[in-house]
Amino acid sequence: MKYSAINFEEKLSKFAEHFSPKVIAQMNDYYFKVGKFQGHFIWHEHTDTDETFIVLDGEMRIDFRDGKVELKTGEMIVVPKGVEHRPFAEKECRILLVEPVGTVNTGDAGGDLTVKEDVWI
Amino acid sequence: MKYSAINFEEKLSKFAEHFSPKVIAQMNDYYFKVGKFQGHFIWHEHTDTDETFIVLDGEMRIDFRDGKVELKTGEMIVVPKGVEHRPFAEKECRILLVEPVGTVNTGDAGGDLTVKEDVWI
Repeated sequence: MKYSAINFEEKLSKFAEHFSPKVIAQMNDYYFKVGKFQGHFIWHEHTDTDETFIVLDGEMRIDFRDGKVELKTGEMIVVPKGVEHRPFAEKECRILLVEPVGTVNTGDAGGDLTVKEDVWI
Repeated sequence: MKYSAINFEEKLSKFAEHFSPKVIAQMNDYYFKVGKFQGHFIWHEHTDTDETFIVLDGEMRIDFRDGKVELKTGEMIVVPKGVEHRPFAEKECRILLVEPVGTVNTGDAGGDLTVKEDVWI
């Protein structure tokens, strides 16, 4: 069969590093990525696209310059394009990201946390 | 605060009907919709877009002309554009759909199950 289910837990078991989402599926020109967040990410924005965070397991927070949003398992948020944000998770939080192919995790900010290349798992 | 978390369970509690997904978020020109599936949907295809099914709670199946895929909580599939498919769920299954704004649930097939208008909840 050429079609098969993609299991989030199984995909998440294949890597350990934090803030390094891996591609698990493509819909048109968008990627679905699973990631493990822990600690502070950096302030950044995506100037040309919205970005979706879905919490699969755990709790995280997204800081904005004018507030913050707490997210837990079974919750999502769409961060609008051009809005600075900073993900944070006290304990490891497992997430599903949806964003256009080519979206860089650090947006305009760059730096050491930048994922250089999309990796499929 | 203008940003807030979207809780799938809370959104799903707002309606009861089957095969009538409701819009809960927009990312660029894509909608996220929650839906409750039970029974057989109809055979259809979307000629101009892929379509993503994420199972939030329950079990479902997608029949293809050349096979089938079983999906359970924590699993997803992207049905490629132009591929005929037929969702089925024996018991009520709660799902998250991701698809372009304007995608019709019955695709090319039409009929009584067609959702005439996108409803935000």
